[in-house]
Amino acid sequence: MGKTDKKIEQLGEFGLIELLTKDIIIKNKETHRGIGDDAAVLDYGDDNVLVSTDILMEGIHFNTIYTPMKHLGYKAVVANLSDIYAMNAIPKQILVSLAFSAKFTLQQIENLYKGIKLACSNYNVDLAGGDTSSSLTGMAISITAIGRGEKDRIVYRSGAGKNDLICVTGDVGAAYLGLQLLEREKKMFLSDPKTQPVLGGHDYPLGRQLKPEPRADIIKFFRENNILPTAMIDISDGLSSEILHICKESNAGCRIFAGHIPIAPETEKLASEFNMTPLVAALNGGEDYELVFTISPIEYEKIKANPHIKPIGHITGKKEGCAMVMDDGSSVPLQAQGWDAYSSRPQK
Amino acid sequence: MGKTDKKIEQLGEFGLIELLTKDIIIKNKETHRGIGDDAAVLDYGDDNVLVSTDILMEGIHFNTIYTPMKHLGYKAVVANLSDIYAMNAIPKQILVSLAFSAKFTLQQIENLYKGIKLACSNYNVDLAGGDTSSSLTGMAISITAIGRGEKDRIVYRSGAGKNDLICVTGDVGAAYLGLQLLEREKKMFLSDPKTQPVLGGHDYPLGRQLKPEPRADIIKFFRENNILPTAMIDISDGLSSEILHICKESNAGCRIFAGHIPIAPETEKLASEFNMTPLVAALNGGEDYELVFTISPIEYEKIKANPHIKPIGHITGKKEGCAMVMDDGSSVPLQAQGWDAYSSRPQK
Repeated sequence: MGKTDKKIEQLGEFGLIELLTKDIIIKNKETHRGIGDDAAVLDYGDDNVLVSTDILMEGIHFNTIYTPMKHLGYKAVVANLSDIYAMNAIPKQILVSLAFSAKFTLQQIENLYKGIKLACSNYNVDLAGGDTSSSLTGMAISITAIGRGEKDRIVYRSGAGKNDLICVTGDVGAAYLGLQLLEREKKMFLSDPKTQPVLGGHDYPLGRQLKPEPRADIIKFFRENNILPTAMIDISDGLSSEILHICKESNAGCRIFAGHIPIAPETEKLASEFNMTPLVAALNGGEDYELVFTISPIEYEKIKANPHIKPIGHITGKKEGCAMVMDDGSSVPLQAQGWDAYSSRPQK
Repeated sequence: MGKTDKKIEQLGEFGLIELLTKDIIIKNKETHRGIGDDAAVLDYGDDNVLVSTDILMEGIHFNTIYTPMKHLGYKAVVANLSDIYAMNAIPKQILVSLAFSAKFTLQQIENLYKGIKLACSNYNVDLAGGDTSSSLTGMAISITAIGRGEKDRIVYRSGAGKNDLICVTGDVGAAYLGLQLLEREKKMFLSDPKTQPVLGGHDYPLGRQLKPEPRADIIKFFRENNILPTAMIDISDGLSSEILHICKESNAGCRIFAGHIPIAPETEKLASEFNMTPLVAALNGGEDYELVFTISPIEYEKIKANPHIKPIGHITGKKEGCAMVMDDGSSVPLQAQGWDAYSSRPQK
């Protein structure tokens, strides 16, 4: 769309929607009718329909000082697609509801949509509807993701059984440390606006914070290798919080081995800059959009060759509780200290 | 749930969700799994899935000074169900995303949910998921409605044909005048807080503004009488704006007869108090959540006995434009001057 000198007030709501959506081409056969009517019309055949929604608020979930609008749009979509993948299903459509105040320019909104559309393109998802509105202050983004799941292959949080292996994809904690870095530079900038941000050498945690990717590859791997996890969840609030969700819903306990939790070297390096134990960021940081899943031990042969999957513990009986075994052999209770919308970000 | 002296900060996000959702019982067979996992899981068999979403912002779409929280929750749901009915489909689930600042008490949030649940109960819809978050200022409510539509009975905006009758359900303009009344009393209150609101005698427009109902009855009537409109839309922005949407999407024009537009006597009475032409409120007011639909003239016999449906004009060729015929026989272009998210409310 490029640069435009038009004002949003001149376009009006319908003009804005037309500008933002005119280049959208429907790609999925499941999207019978997309934007342009009272509702999107979807055809899922005999399969189940998965629906998930999130709301992101400026100043709570994102900060426009250090988040480029295109990244913000991309990440908002990713966070929702991740929820559909976490059910072992394939996202097919999103609906985007957006409210923003007069401080945002048309170009910013166009950039936000560029990020939204890039995520849709990368993950083969149709932008099939939504709503745009004004706001008195700041921006609110609410995205609904809709996906397709084969009836006998949907994975809930509640299916973990005793002795099942607990596995994590990729590595965890980097997104949180990327955020700490951005917050530090924001404070430096606010106290002295002539300061240039010192972000160099930390591309990995910054990328994990600003442009996360959901684990579509893992869901594909499960399908291709006929693997069916017993329970699964994505890591949005923090690894420990997610494992506790699985244990609670599955009426089970767990033993996690601290030394097995995958942490990238870049994460460890940045954690030491912040005088933080990397394990704390890994357990409580959140926003990694990795998957935690449980799997029957007899399925282990099928996953062990995948370098993106790491077993970190196993499911126990409920009365044994949720415990983490440290490197020295001592055991501590696993606690959820991750993101809570009604407290501040975890203080460490 | 009754009164509670707990604080939201003490409950935390998961505690709040549990409190608000613990009494929810799934009623529709289409809701395979509701709240409690990464996504809701729905089974729609061979039918199409309809999905629609809206975002409501405090200070833009609602004002907590005169909107009771229970009414706000009810109306937020109704606005979304109305979009599903407008496709000639039946809403089955909603997802609710809610963000609110520290100024809101737990009791207010519980009352909001009472309204949400009452609307779900009245329209047999399952609350199947959502998200709760904090906000720096004010409240944002984003609701996604999901519905079931028989493949050959879904009605789009785009199907209106030449000579089709244009029909409106119920009456229009009352919700807008109810809002004017509330705004007037708010100003009086703000200038002199000892003033008592003078709302008496205007129950009808106030009710239409504060507790609208979607036209589930009309969709049922269509089904029972084997009526299939050629195009349909619900009235959220304003009657003229909605008719123009149908004409644009159907590549058609229209002739509307001003004298046929249904306006309640209570609406006319209140309009005269505001020195406003009732027709202006009827055309541009919005938030009526009535339906506008087009129907083949040969189907007229099937609808004429229904007192809730009124023909107000017909579809013409595109080149004849969109016109309104006044009572004196003169003709004026039909214009959309209804609600636009990026301008102020219509000034009249």
